[in-house]
Amino acid sequence: MQTASCAPASRLLARRLDELAGVTDEPGKLTRTFLSPAMRQANALVGKWMRAAGLAVREDALGNLIGRAEGPGPGSPTLLLGSHLDTVRDAGRFDGALGVLLPIVALDELRRRGVTLPYAVEVLGFSEEEGVRFSSAYLGSKGYAGKLRASDLARRDANGITVGEAIKGHGGLRAQAKRGTGFQPVLSTNTGKGARATSHPSPLLGYFEVHIEQGPVLEAEKLAVGVVSAIAGQTRGRLTFRGRAGHAGTTPMQLRRDALAGAAELILFAEELARRRPPLVATVGSLAVAPGVPNVIPGEVVLSLDVRHPRDAARRAALRRLLAQARAIARRRKLGCAWQVTQDDGAVACAPRLATVLIRSVRAVQGRSLRLPSGAGHDAIVMAGLAPVAMLFVRCRGGLSHHPDEFASRADLEVALRVTLDFLERLGAGALRP
Amino acid sequence: MQTASCAPASRLLARRLDELAGVTDEPGKLTRTFLSPAMRQANALVGKWMRAAGLAVREDALGNLIGRAEGPGPGSPTLLLGSHLDTVRDAGRFDGALGVLLPIVALDELRRRGVTLPYAVEVLGFSEEEGVRFSSAYLGSKGYAGKLRASDLARRDANGITVGEAIKGHGGLRAQAKRGTGFQPVLSTNTGKGARATSHPSPLLGYFEVHIEQGPVLEAEKLAVGVVSAIAGQTRGRLTFRGRAGHAGTTPMQLRRDALAGAAELILFAEELARRRPPLVATVGSLAVAPGVPNVIPGEVVLSLDVRHPRDAARRAALRRLLAQARAIARRRKLGCAWQVTQDDGAVACAPRLATVLIRSVRAVQGRSLRLPSGAGHDAIVMAGLAPVAMLFVRCRGGLSHHPDEFASRADLEVALRVTLDFLERLGAGALRP
Repeated sequence: MQTASCAPASRLLARRLDELAGVTDEPGKLTRTFLSPAMRQANALVGKWMRAAGLAVREDALGNLIGRAEGPGPGSPTLLLGSHLDTVRDAGRFDGALGVLLPIVALDELRRRGVTLPYAVEVLGFSEEEGVRFSSAYLGSKGYAGKLRASDLARRDANGITVGEAIKGHGGLRAQAKRGTGFQPVLSTNTGKGARATSHPSPLLGYFEVHIEQGPVLEAEKLAVGVVSAIAGQTRGRLTFRGRAGHAGTTPMQLRRDALAGAAELILFAEELARRRPPLVATVGSLAVAPGVPNVIPGEVVLSLDVRHPRDAARRAALRRLLAQARAIARRRKLGCAWQVTQDDGAVACAPRLATVLIRSVRAVQGRSLRLPSGAGHDAIVMAGLAPVAMLFVRCRGGLSHHPDEFASRADLEVALRVTLDFLERLGAGALRP
Repeated sequence: MQTASCAPASRLLARRLDELAGVTDEPGKLTRTFLSPAMRQANALVGKWMRAAGLAVREDALGNLIGRAEGPGPGSPTLLLGSHLDTVRDAGRFDGALGVLLPIVALDELRRRGVTLPYAVEVLGFSEEEGVRFSSAYLGSKGYAGKLRASDLARRDANGITVGEAIKGHGGLRAQAKRGTGFQPVLSTNTGKGARATSHPSPLLGYFEVHIEQGPVLEAEKLAVGVVSAIAGQTRGRLTFRGRAGHAGTTPMQLRRDALAGAAELILFAEELARRRPPLVATVGSLAVAPGVPNVIPGEVVLSLDVRHPRDAARRAALRRLLAQARAIARRRKLGCAWQVTQDDGAVACAPRLATVLIRSVRAVQGRSLRLPSGAGHDAIVMAGLAPVAMLFVRCRGGLSHHPDEFASRADLEVALRVTLDFLERLGAGALRP
């Protein structure tokens, strides 16, 4: 298989990541949100690179950029490769973009080497994954996979514009491919029934996503890349403690019902529970105090609780324990306590057969292969409803992501590129055949 | 001494509290801030009641309302009685107003009964105590006592107007008394030297302030009124914990530097310390998390810490203990930690001789007298620099204050009124003579 150096291709990849990072809605920082002017520019730029790699380019109603190379026959299966082109505010240049640009460079490299794949490929640049504009993630991949619900289309951004209106304004329906191949996902969801998995016009080999790890494990293990075993399930919600506001100077300690002190107990309990049960992670990331002034005892605290684990049963057990503790704290302190779930996603296992092939490719290029769970969500979660998924993680410095200092080295990009080339060729050589 | 019922006078007092509560800057709720239109109206209304009680009324440069009845001779000493007429936003009707209106009704009642006091009285309605408009409390009493600093005059409100400009706009200097009696406090501070205690033109017997307790102690003790022993000293500041923001899904627990978890430890430590050392109170009333989103580990937390105790040494010792613990938490968790004091006021003891007289009056009216510290600040703190101070607390329902439901019963108002009448007569009978 293909384990030769491909330094020029990885340099090209690094240059393109830099160039794409300059396409932004906010001068001086990298911000590209769903259907924004910068997203149109990004699609134009990446579309140009797709065409240069021999792909036929279209954009669907959601603003997803799709570059397709047909297989040898009309019944050829299709391998999907991709990630998202939108970003958080003041983002780094690798999160999302890497998983779109790397496959383009890889396909270009294969063509340059005269390799013909025995299957069709579709490189997908999803228009929305980060949930910045509509506080709802995966709009792009949900649209592609025909899983948008009417409730998704009704969500509003900070200016009161709905997803549905934003799509119409974008002219996505007109831009949609006229040909029979390719999805028509938005049309299929406008009925309001939603959540139907639309079948793809050609049989799917799988969905392959390359992404920076966004965590510190590969760095600690001194590995450039690793194979994702599963994407952790995640429960997120709001926990409210209600006590009684009171004068900070005149209310003796024993007469207080301090909502913040109750919240503090839960924060420490959550930290301790997760420490005892790795790879469980539990995070209180936001906390609002009312009335929130220095001389008034906190009467109400609303905090976010985010609990993740690669095994659903372990996540659910941890959540039950946390909520039981919250209620016990509230009882003891005479506080009210309420829990509201805002997100609840089951874990997604990567497809074992695809993972086996990918592990072989990683061993061929890197020597050692490590399987690790993903604590972060990715488009692969949604795509798992459509096709078997595989994910390759690339080491990033300090585990830092969602930050302008996000960094993956050129050497690591080259390893990821070589692994991808090897993986594409192994699949072409029939690695998935029984 | 005067222990007879005075139901009509207490009814008058309750009616006037109601009427004054209708004078507001915000329709539908009670809000009167320094030099606002409602404060002018309030001064006009209370000035009318002062004149009806036989007082000569003036307003000083700060908008303080002053009603004076001369004593029998030019060298007669003066007893000051008062509190503030400004309010917090959406306030109750007792905080401040009670301490201005009750003395007016008391003096009226004495006149009705034909009692002549052998000293002058000045009823003071301070124009600013709550610190709402300029985030600085006691501007009124500081002005009256000649303790305004140039830095006070330079403070700006939300519209960028300085205290000095607000005073000029109010026309206070023109309204100031032309006669030799009475202060000219603002003129004396315009030199910018500030902080000089101006001597009062006549010898002062003391300053007496009636105020709702704003706490739950009298209610728990089933007493209508109590005698304040001291006003607690108070240190207030901002404590910052700096950790490292990180992805809530991908950062294992043992690699986190969570600023909020550090803050949670300190919150519980402060609560426990104060519980063990009554009457110490320690409060974290505000807490801001950055970046403050559910899926990011908190990188920085800024919290307010408010520590109060009637003894300065105990307050300082508690603060040292708290800051040492904050540093220990920060070291263990690899966090940065910084402390910034924003307010530091020493405790103010009430004058023992005045308190002795007041206790006798409380015993005569109520049977039992309880001395209690004030955890809240009052104008008496500033006035203690000018004269011996005494304070009478009136029970308020549930300890609730700074809220529209703030409530003191008519029966309790009557007890406070009778105690005040008794106190005025005892002083007239020479109770302070050695």
